[in-house]
Amino acid sequence: MRVNKIDFHFSKLRYQPDFEHFSDEEFQQIKEHTVLRSYKKGQILFDDGDPRQRLYILTKGLVRLERYDESATYYYYDYVNTNNLFPMSGMFGEETYTYTAQAMTDIETFYLPVSYYEKLARKNPEQLIYMIQKISKVVEIHELRIQIGLTSSAFDRVKQNLFILKEELGVPTKDGHITIPYPITLKELAVNSGTTRETAGQVIKQLRDSGLLDYDKKRFTFCKTATTPAMRE
Amino acid sequence: MRVNKIDFHFSKLRYQPDFEHFSDEEFQQIKEHTVLRSYKKGQILFDDGDPRQRLYILTKGLVRLERYDESATYYYYDYVNTNNLFPMSGMFGEETYTYTAQAMTDIETFYLPVSYYEKLARKNPEQLIYMIQKISKVVEIHELRIQIGLTSSAFDRVKQNLFILKEELGVPTKDGHITIPYPITLKELAVNSGTTRETAGQVIKQLRDSGLLDYDKKRFTFCKTATTPAMRE
Repeated sequence: MRVNKIDFHFSKLRYQPDFEHFSDEEFQQIKEHTVLRSYKKGQILFDDGDPRQRLYILTKGLVRLERYDESATYYYYDYVNTNNLFPMSGMFGEETYTYTAQAMTDIETFYLPVSYYEKLARKNPEQLIYMIQKISKVVEIHELRIQIGLTSSAFDRVKQNLFILKEELGVPTKDGHITIPYPITLKELAVNSGTTRETAGQVIKQLRDSGLLDYDKKRFTFCKTATTPAMRE
Repeated sequence: MRVNKIDFHFSKLRYQPDFEHFSDEEFQQIKEHTVLRSYKKGQILFDDGDPRQRLYILTKGLVRLERYDESATYYYYDYVNTNNLFPMSGMFGEETYTYTAQAMTDIETFYLPVSYYEKLARKNPEQLIYMIQKISKVVEIHELRIQIGLTSSAFDRVKQNLFILKEELGVPTKDGHITIPYPITLKELAVNSGTTRETAGQVIKQLRDSGLLDYDKKRFTFCKTATTPAMRE
Protein backbone atom coordinates (compact mmCIF):
# COMPACT_ATOMS: atom_id res chain seq x y z
CA MET A 1 0.00 0.00 0.00
CA ARG A 2 2.70 2.44 1.11
CA VAL A 3 4.75 1.75 -1.99
CA ASN A 4 1.76 2.24 -4.25
CA LYS A 5 0.98 5.60 -2.71
CA ILE A 6 4.55 6.80 -3.30
CA ASP A 7 4.46 5.47 -6.87
CA PHE A 8 1.17 7.20 -7.51
CA HIS A 9 2.24 10.61 -6.22
CA PHE A 10 5.76 10.46 -7.57
CA SER A 11 4.65 9.50 -11.07
CA LYS A 12 2.69 12.76 -11.20
CA LEU A 13 5.99 14.64 -10.93
CA ARG A 14 7.52 13.12 -14.06
CA TYR A 15 6.38 15.89 -16.39
CA GLN A 16 6.39 18.72 -13.88
CA PRO A 17 8.97 21.38 -14.86
CA ASP A 18 11.13 20.57 -11.82
CA PHE A 19 11.77 17.07 -13.19
CA GLU A 20 10.93 16.97 -16.89
CA HIS A 21 14.49 17.66 -18.03
CA PHE A 22 15.88 14.57 -16.36
CA SER A 23 16.13 11.30 -18.27
CA ASP A 24 13.88 8.40 -17.24
CA GLU A 25 16.86 6.78 -15.60
CA GLU A 26 17.75 9.90 -13.65
CA PHE A 27 14.13 10.36 -12.60
CA GLN A 28 14.12 6.78 -11.33
CA GLN A 29 17.35 7.44 -9.41
CA ILE A 30 15.86 10.56 -7.85
CA LYS A 31 12.85 8.51 -6.78
CA GLU A 32 15.09 6.00 -5.06
CA HIS A 33 16.57 8.82 -2.96
CA THR A 34 13.15 10.25 -2.12
CA VAL A 35 11.06 9.69 1.01
CA LEU A 36 7.35 10.47 1.58
CA ARG A 37 6.43 11.78 5.00
CA SER A 38 3.48 13.34 6.83
CA TYR A 39 3.67 16.34 9.14
CA LYS A 40 0.99 17.75 11.39
CA LYS A 41 -0.12 21.36 11.17
CA GLY A 42 2.41 23.54 12.99
CA GLN A 43 5.37 21.18 12.59
CA ILE A 44 8.68 22.53 11.32
CA LEU A 45 10.26 21.00 8.20
CA PHE A 46 13.51 22.92 8.60
CA ASP A 47 14.77 25.91 10.55
CA ASP A 48 16.59 29.05 9.44
CA GLY A 49 20.28 28.15 9.85
CA ASP A 50 19.89 24.37 9.58
CA PRO A 51 22.18 22.65 7.04
CA ARG A 52 20.52 22.87 3.62
CA GLN A 53 20.27 19.09 3.18
CA ARG A 54 16.82 18.41 1.75
CA LEU A 55 14.55 19.57 -1.03
CA TYR A 56 10.82 19.13 -0.52
CA ILE A 57 7.81 18.61 -2.79
CA LEU A 58 4.40 18.76 -1.14
CA THR A 59 1.77 16.29 -2.28
CA LYS A 60 -0.83 17.74 0.10
CA GLY A 61 -1.32 20.96 2.05
CA LEU A 62 0.39 24.32 2.46
CA VAL A 63 3.79 25.32 3.85
CA ARG A 64 4.90 28.78 4.97
CA LEU A 65 8.48 29.96 4.61
CA GLU A 66 9.19 32.54 7.29
CA ARG A 67 12.01 34.51 8.83
CA TYR A 68 12.14 36.90 11.77
CA ASP A 69 14.86 39.12 13.10
CA GLU A 70 15.85 38.68 16.74
CA SER A 71 13.44 41.32 17.97
CA ALA A 72 10.63 39.82 15.84
CA THR A 73 10.02 43.28 14.38
CA TYR A 74 10.71 42.24 10.80
CA TYR A 75 9.00 39.30 9.12
CA TYR A 76 9.47 37.54 5.85
CA TYR A 77 6.59 35.24 4.79
CA ASP A 78 6.15 33.20 1.67
CA TYR A 79 3.96 30.22 0.80
CA VAL A 80 4.52 26.98 -1.06
CA ASN A 81 1.80 24.73 -2.35
CA THR A 82 1.74 21.29 -3.94
CA ASN A 83 4.01 19.90 -6.68
CA ASN A 84 6.68 22.55 -6.25
CA LEU A 85 10.27 21.70 -5.44
CA PHE A 86 11.51 24.01 -2.68
CA PRO A 87 13.53 25.84 -1.56
CA MET A 88 14.98 26.61 -5.00
CA SER A 89 16.96 29.70 -3.98
CA GLY A 90 20.31 28.96 -2.42
CA MET A 91 20.98 26.21 -5.01
CA PHE A 92 24.68 25.57 -5.69
CA GLY A 93 25.64 27.98 -2.98
CA GLU A 94 24.12 28.35 0.43
CA GLU A 95 25.12 25.82 3.07
CA THR A 96 22.17 26.53 5.34
CA TYR A 97 18.48 27.28 4.91
CA THR A 98 17.74 30.99 5.05
CA TYR A 99 14.25 30.59 6.49
CA THR A 100 12.07 28.28 8.49
CA ALA A 101 9.45 26.09 6.79
CA GLN A 102 6.32 25.43 8.81
CA ALA A 103 3.33 23.24 7.92
CA MET A 104 0.25 25.50 7.83
CA THR A 105 -2.06 22.51 7.41
CA ASP A 106 -1.51 18.80 7.88
CA ILE A 107 0.77 18.01 4.97
CA GLU A 108 2.34 15.20 3.02
CA THR A 109 5.68 15.85 1.43
CA PHE A 110 8.43 14.13 -0.46
CA TYR A 111 11.98 15.02 0.42
CA LEU A 112 15.26 14.19 -1.25
CA PRO A 113 18.92 15.15 -0.71
CA VAL A 114 19.86 18.56 -2.12
CA SER A 115 23.29 17.17 -3.02
CA TYR A 116 21.75 14.49 -5.20
CA TYR A 117 19.50 16.86 -7.11
CA GLU A 118 22.38 19.29 -7.59
CA LYS A 119 24.65 16.50 -8.80
CA LEU A 120 22.21 15.51 -11.55
CA ALA A 121 21.30 19.09 -12.46
CA ARG A 122 24.94 20.17 -12.66
CA LYS A 123 25.54 18.27 -15.91
CA ASN A 124 22.16 19.04 -17.44
CA PRO A 125 22.07 22.49 -19.09
CA GLU A 126 18.33 22.27 -19.89
CA GLN A 127 17.63 21.68 -16.22
CA LEU A 128 19.95 24.54 -15.21
CA ILE A 129 18.21 26.90 -17.62
CA TYR A 130 14.88 25.86 -16.14
CA MET A 131 16.22 26.66 -12.67
CA ILE A 132 17.35 30.11 -13.85
CA GLN A 133 13.86 30.73 -15.22
CA LYS A 134 12.23 29.51 -12.02
CA ILE A 135 14.38 31.68 -9.76
CA SER A 136 13.80 34.61 -12.13
CA LYS A 137 10.07 34.19 -11.56
CA VAL A 138 10.69 34.39 -7.83
CA VAL A 139 12.62 37.61 -8.40
CA GLU A 140 9.69 38.98 -10.39
CA ILE A 141 7.17 38.21 -7.63
CA HIS A 142 9.53 39.64 -5.03
CA GLU A 143 9.95 42.86 -7.00
CA LEU A 144 6.21 43.18 -7.06
CA ARG A 145 6.07 42.63 -3.31
CA ILE A 146 8.75 45.28 -2.76
CA GLN A 147 6.88 47.64 -5.04
CA ILE A 148 3.69 47.03 -3.09
CA GLY A 149 5.42 47.36 0.26
CA LEU A 150 6.67 50.83 -0.61
CA THR A 151 3.46 52.63 0.14
CA SER A 152 2.76 54.26 3.44
CA SER A 153 -0.94 53.31 3.18
CA ALA A 154 -1.62 50.18 5.23
CA PHE A 155 -4.95 49.82 3.37
CA ASP A 156 -3.11 49.63 0.06
CA ARG A 157 -0.56 47.16 1.41
CA VAL A 158 -3.29 44.78 2.60
CA LYS A 159 -5.15 44.99 -0.71
CA GLN A 160 -2.03 44.36 -2.74
CA ASN A 161 -0.98 41.46 -0.56
CA LEU A 162 -4.36 39.84 -1.00
CA PHE A 163 -3.85 39.93 -4.73
CA ILE A 164 -0.39 38.43 -4.43
CA LEU A 165 -1.87 35.55 -2.43
CA LYS A 166 -4.42 35.21 -5.20
CA GLU A 167 -1.67 35.01 -7.83
CA GLU A 168 0.45 32.59 -5.85
CA LEU A 169 -2.11 30.26 -4.34
CA GLY A 170 -5.39 30.85 -6.14
CA VAL A 171 -7.22 28.16 -8.08
CA PRO A 172 -10.27 28.68 -10.33
CA THR A 173 -13.70 27.72 -9.03
CA LYS A 174 -16.42 26.16 -11.16
CA ASP A 175 -18.18 29.48 -11.57
CA GLY A 176 -15.06 31.33 -12.73
CA HIS A 177 -13.95 32.99 -9.51
CA ILE A 178 -10.57 32.39 -7.85
CA THR A 179 -10.34 30.77 -4.44
CA ILE A 180 -7.44 30.13 -2.07
CA PRO A 181 -8.00 26.56 -0.92
CA TYR A 182 -6.12 27.03 2.38
CA PRO A 183 -7.05 28.79 5.60
CA ILE A 184 -5.39 32.23 5.90
CA THR A 185 -6.09 34.06 9.16
CA LEU A 186 -6.61 37.79 9.49
CA LYS A 187 -3.60 37.89 11.82
CA GLU A 188 -1.44 36.34 9.13
CA LEU A 189 -2.60 38.71 6.44
CA ALA A 190 -1.91 41.60 8.83
CA VAL A 191 1.66 40.49 9.58
CA ASN A 192 2.27 39.93 5.90
CA SER A 193 1.13 43.50 5.21
CA GLY A 194 2.94 45.24 8.06
CA THR A 195 -0.25 46.33 9.79
CA THR A 196 -2.74 45.37 12.49
CA ARG A 197 -5.44 42.73 12.55
CA GLU A 198 -8.02 45.51 12.80
CA THR A 199 -6.84 47.31 9.67
CA ALA A 200 -6.71 44.04 7.73
CA GLY A 201 -10.28 43.37 8.87
CA GLN A 202 -11.45 46.79 7.68
CA VAL A 203 -9.92 46.27 4.24
CA ILE A 204 -11.62 42.92 3.89
CA LYS A 205 -14.94 44.41 4.93
CA GLN A 206 -14.53 47.15 2.33
CA LEU A 207 -13.66 44.67 -0.43
CA ARG A 208 -16.50 42.40 0.61
CA ASP A 209 -18.96 45.30 0.56
CA SER A 210 -17.75 46.14 -2.96
CA GLY A 211 -18.42 42.55 -4.04
CA LEU A 212 -14.78 41.93 -4.97
CA LEU A 213 -14.02 39.39 -2.28
CA ASP A 214 -15.55 36.81 -0.02
CA TYR A 215 -13.95 35.62 3.23
CA ASP A 216 -15.57 32.65 4.88
CA LYS A 217 -14.07 30.15 7.34
CA LYS A 218 -10.62 31.66 6.70
CA ARG A 219 -10.96 31.00 2.95
CA PHE A 220 -10.60 33.87 0.49
CA THR A 221 -12.52 33.88 -2.78
CA PHE A 222 -11.91 36.60 -5.35
CA CYS A 223 -14.58 37.71 -7.73
CA LYS A 224 -13.60 37.07 -11.34
CA THR A 225 -13.75 40.77 -12.10
CA ALA A 226 -11.20 41.67 -9.38
CA THR A 227 -7.78 42.68 -10.74
CA THR A 228 -4.81 44.18 -8.98
CA PRO A 229 -3.58 47.61 -10.11
CA ALA A 230 0.18 47.14 -9.78
CA MET A 231 0.21 43.67 -11.34
CA ARG A 232 1.76 43.54 -14.78
CA GLU A 233 -0.25 41.80 -17.49
CA MET B 1 42.56 55.85 -28.78
CA ARG B 2 38.94 54.66 -28.75
CA VAL B 3 39.95 51.07 -29.35
CA ASN B 4 42.50 51.22 -26.54
CA LYS B 5 39.93 52.46 -24.09
CA ILE B 6 37.61 49.58 -24.93
CA ASP B 7 40.48 47.11 -24.66
CA PHE B 8 41.47 48.51 -21.30
CA HIS B 9 38.03 48.37 -19.76
CA PHE B 10 37.00 45.11 -21.34
CA SER B 11 40.14 43.28 -20.24
CA LYS B 12 39.16 44.05 -16.64
CA LEU B 13 36.06 41.92 -17.14
CA ARG B 14 37.94 38.73 -18.04
CA TYR B 15 38.07 37.35 -14.52
CA GLN B 16 34.86 38.91 -13.22
CA PRO B 17 32.33 36.19 -12.29
CA ASP B 18 30.02 37.22 -15.15
CA PHE B 19 32.69 36.20 -17.68
CA GLU B 20 35.24 33.93 -16.04
CA HIS B 21 33.53 30.70 -17.07
CA PHE B 22 33.85 31.47 -20.76
CA SER B 23 36.85 30.27 -22.75
CA ASP B 24 39.35 32.83 -24.05
CA GLU B 25 37.91 32.36 -27.49
CA GLU B 26 34.33 32.90 -26.28
CA PHE B 27 35.40 35.95 -24.29
CA GLN B 28 36.99 37.36 -27.46
CA GLN B 29 33.79 36.65 -29.40
CA ILE B 30 31.71 38.41 -26.74
CA LYS B 31 34.02 41.39 -27.01
CA GLU B 32 33.49 41.58 -30.75
CA HIS B 33 29.74 41.87 -30.15
CA THR B 34 30.18 44.52 -27.48
CA VAL B 35 29.91 48.30 -27.82
CA LEU B 36 31.07 51.01 -25.38
CA ARG B 37 28.84 54.03 -25.05
CA SER B 38 28.38 57.12 -22.88
CA TYR B 39 25.07 58.38 -21.49
CA LYS B 40 24.35 61.64 -19.71
CA LYS B 41 22.78 61.74 -16.29
CA GLY B 42 19.02 61.22 -16.65
CA GLN B 43 19.16 59.31 -19.94
CA ILE B 44 17.24 56.06 -20.30
CA LEU B 45 19.12 52.87 -21.26
CA PHE B 46 15.95 50.86 -21.70
CA ASP B 47 12.29 51.17 -20.81
CA ASP B 48 9.91 48.78 -19.06
CA GLY B 49 8.31 46.83 -21.90
CA ASP B 50 11.08 47.34 -24.49
CA PRO B 51 12.34 44.16 -26.18
CA ARG B 52 15.01 42.62 -23.92
CA GLN B 53 17.78 42.92 -26.50
CA ARG B 54 20.85 44.10 -24.63
CA LEU B 55 22.86 43.31 -21.53
CA TYR B 56 24.85 46.14 -19.98
CA ILE B 57 28.04 46.42 -17.95
CA LEU B 58 28.85 49.84 -16.52
CA THR B 59 32.45 50.96 -16.52
CA LYS B 60 31.61 54.26 -14.82
CA GLY B 61 28.72 55.63 -12.79
CA LEU B 62 25.44 54.45 -11.32
CA VAL B 63 22.21 53.21 -12.91
CA ARG B 64 18.81 52.92 -11.28
CA LEU B 65 16.32 50.21 -12.23
CA GLU B 66 12.83 51.46 -11.60
CA ARG B 67 9.22 50.60 -12.16
CA TYR B 68 5.98 52.42 -11.43
CA ASP B 69 2.38 51.44 -11.68
CA GLU B 70 0.09 53.59 -13.81
CA SER B 71 -0.99 55.77 -10.92
CA ALA B 72 2.66 56.14 -9.78
CA THR B 73 1.59 55.01 -6.30
CA TYR B 74 3.88 51.99 -6.22
CA TYR B 75 7.60 52.14 -6.94
CA TYR B 76 10.29 49.58 -7.42
CA TYR B 77 13.87 50.90 -7.22
CA ASP B 78 17.15 49.07 -7.45
CA TYR B 79 20.70 50.18 -8.22
CA VAL B 80 23.49 48.82 -10.36
CA ASN B 81 27.10 49.86 -10.15
CA THR B 82 30.22 49.11 -12.18
CA ASN B 83 31.41 45.75 -13.53
CA ASN B 84 28.03 44.05 -13.14
CA LEU B 85 26.22 42.48 -16.04
CA PHE B 86 22.57 43.48 -15.93
CA PRO B 87 19.70 42.79 -16.03
CA MET B 88 20.32 39.16 -15.08
CA SER B 89 16.76 38.31 -14.15
CA GLY B 90 14.57 37.43 -17.08
CA MET B 91 17.39 35.39 -18.66
CA PHE B 92 16.21 32.58 -20.96
CA GLY B 93 12.66 33.70 -20.57
CA GLU B 94 11.35 37.21 -20.64
CA GLU B 95 10.95 38.87 -24.02
CA THR B 96 10.81 42.40 -22.63
CA TYR B 97 12.54 44.36 -19.88
CA THR B 98 10.50 44.46 -16.70
CA TYR B 99 11.81 47.85 -15.56
CA THR B 100 13.33 51.05 -16.83
CA ALA B 101 17.08 51.72 -16.45
CA GLN B 102 18.04 55.34 -15.93
CA ALA B 103 21.53 56.84 -15.64
CA MET B 104 21.78 58.46 -12.19
CA THR B 105 25.16 60.00 -13.04
CA ASP B 106 26.98 60.46 -16.31
CA ILE B 107 27.87 56.89 -17.18
CA GLU B 108 29.91 54.75 -19.51
CA THR B 109 28.60 51.31 -20.31
CA PHE B 110 29.27 48.34 -22.50
CA TYR B 111 26.35 46.63 -24.08
CA LEU B 112 26.03 43.36 -25.94
CA PRO B 113 23.18 41.30 -27.41
CA VAL B 114 21.28 39.21 -24.86
CA SER B 115 20.83 36.50 -27.49
CA TYR B 116 24.58 36.16 -27.94
CA TYR B 117 25.32 35.88 -24.23
CA GLU B 118 22.49 33.37 -23.81
CA LYS B 119 23.75 31.35 -26.77
CA LEU B 120 27.20 30.93 -25.22
CA ALA B 121 25.90 30.38 -21.68
CA ARG B 122 23.38 27.77 -22.81
CA LYS B 123 26.07 25.19 -23.45
CA ASN B 124 28.22 26.08 -20.46
CA PRO B 125 26.99 24.47 -17.21
CA GLU B 126 29.54 26.29 -15.05
CA GLN B 127 28.27 29.59 -16.38
CA LEU B 128 24.65 28.53 -15.85
CA ILE B 129 25.40 27.52 -12.26
CA TYR B 130 27.03 30.90 -11.71
CA MET B 131 23.89 32.57 -13.04
CA ILE B 132 21.73 30.54 -10.65
CA GLN B 133 23.94 31.66 -7.77
CA LYS B 134 23.82 35.27 -8.89
CA ILE B 135 20.04 35.35 -9.22
CA SER B 136 19.79 33.56 -5.85
CA LYS B 137 21.73 36.44 -4.30
CA VAL B 138 19.20 38.84 -5.78
CA VAL B 139 16.43 36.77 -4.20
CA GLU B 140 18.22 36.98 -0.86
CA ILE B 141 18.53 40.78 -0.99
CA HIS B 142 14.91 41.05 -2.12
CA GLU B 143 13.74 38.90 0.77
CA LEU B 144 15.56 41.20 3.12
CA ARG B 145 13.90 44.20 1.49
CA ILE B 146 10.47 42.57 1.81
CA GLN B 147 11.22 41.75 5.45
CA ILE B 148 12.23 45.35 6.06
CA GLY B 149 9.27 46.74 4.21
CA LEU B 150 6.84 44.86 6.43
CA THR B 151 7.00 47.26 9.33
CA SER B 152 4.51 50.02 9.83
CA SER B 153 7.26 52.29 11.22
CA ALA B 154 8.49 54.66 8.52
CA PHE B 155 11.53 55.42 10.70
CA ASP B 156 12.51 51.75 10.70
CA ARG B 157 11.97 51.45 6.95
CA VAL B 158 14.28 54.39 6.24
CA LYS B 159 16.98 53.05 8.55
CA GLN B 160 16.84 49.59 7.05
CA ASN B 161 16.90 50.92 3.52
CA LEU B 162 19.99 52.95 4.29
CA PHE B 163 21.74 49.80 5.37
CA ILE B 164 20.68 47.99 2.22
CA LEU B 165 22.19 50.81 0.17
CA LYS B 166 25.32 50.39 2.26
CA GLU B 167 25.44 46.65 1.48
CA GLU B 168 24.73 47.10 -2.20
CA LEU B 169 26.76 50.19 -3.08
CA GLY B 170 29.14 50.83 -0.18
CA VAL B 171 32.93 50.88 -0.57
CA PRO B 172 35.46 51.06 2.28
CA THR B 173 37.18 54.37 2.99
CA LYS B 174 40.83 54.70 4.05
CA ASP B 175 39.85 55.06 7.69
CA GLY B 176 37.66 51.95 7.75
CA HIS B 177 34.22 53.49 7.29
CA ILE B 178 31.87 52.66 4.41
CA THR B 179 30.89 55.30 1.88
CA ILE B 180 28.43 55.32 -1.01
CA PRO B 181 30.35 57.00 -3.82
CA TYR B 182 27.22 58.23 -5.61
CA PRO B 183 24.81 61.03 -4.87
CA ILE B 184 21.57 59.79 -3.28
CA THR B 185 18.98 62.48 -2.63
CA LEU B 186 16.69 62.61 0.39
CA LYS B 187 13.74 62.43 -1.99
CA GLU B 188 15.06 59.20 -3.46
CA LEU B 189 15.65 57.62 -0.07
CA ALA B 190 12.12 58.64 0.93
CA VAL B 191 10.50 57.06 -2.14
CA ASN B 192 12.58 53.93 -1.64
CA SER B 193 11.28 53.70 1.93
CA GLY B 194 7.63 54.49 1.28
CA THR B 195 7.66 57.71 3.27
CA THR B 196 8.11 61.47 2.98
CA ARG B 197 11.23 63.55 2.46
CA GLU B 198 10.67 65.07 5.92
CA THR B 199 10.64 61.71 7.71
CA ALA B 200 13.72 60.57 5.80
CA GLY B 201 15.43 63.80 6.88
CA GLN B 202 14.53 63.22 10.53
CA VAL B 203 15.95 59.71 10.48
CA ILE B 204 19.20 60.94 8.98
CA LYS B 205 19.44 63.69 11.59
CA GLN B 206 18.91 61.11 14.34
CA LEU B 207 21.55 58.75 12.93
CA ARG B 208 23.95 61.66 12.40
CA ASP B 209 23.43 62.83 15.97
CA SER B 210 24.20 59.27 17.17
CA GLY B 211 27.45 59.34 15.19
CA LEU B 212 26.41 56.38 13.01
CA LEU B 213 26.14 58.23 9.74
CA ASP B 214 27.36 61.24 7.84
CA TYR B 215 25.45 62.83 4.93
CA ASP B 216 27.31 65.48 3.02
CA LYS B 217 26.74 66.71 -0.54
CA LYS B 218 24.29 63.81 -1.09
CA ARG B 219 26.96 61.27 -0.12
CA PHE B 220 26.29 58.82 2.70
CA THR B 221 29.14 57.57 4.90
CA PHE B 222 28.49 54.89 7.51
CA CYS B 223 30.54 54.66 10.65
CA LYS B 224 32.44 51.37 10.87
CA THR B 225 30.55 50.46 14.03
CA ALA B 226 27.13 50.80 12.37
CA THR B 227 25.39 47.45 11.73
CA THR B 228 21.87 46.70 10.65
CA PRO B 229 19.62 44.65 12.96
CA ALA B 230 17.73 42.53 10.45
CA MET B 231 20.80 41.74 8.32
CA ARG B 232 21.91 38.14 8.52
CA GLU B 233 25.58 37.57 9.31
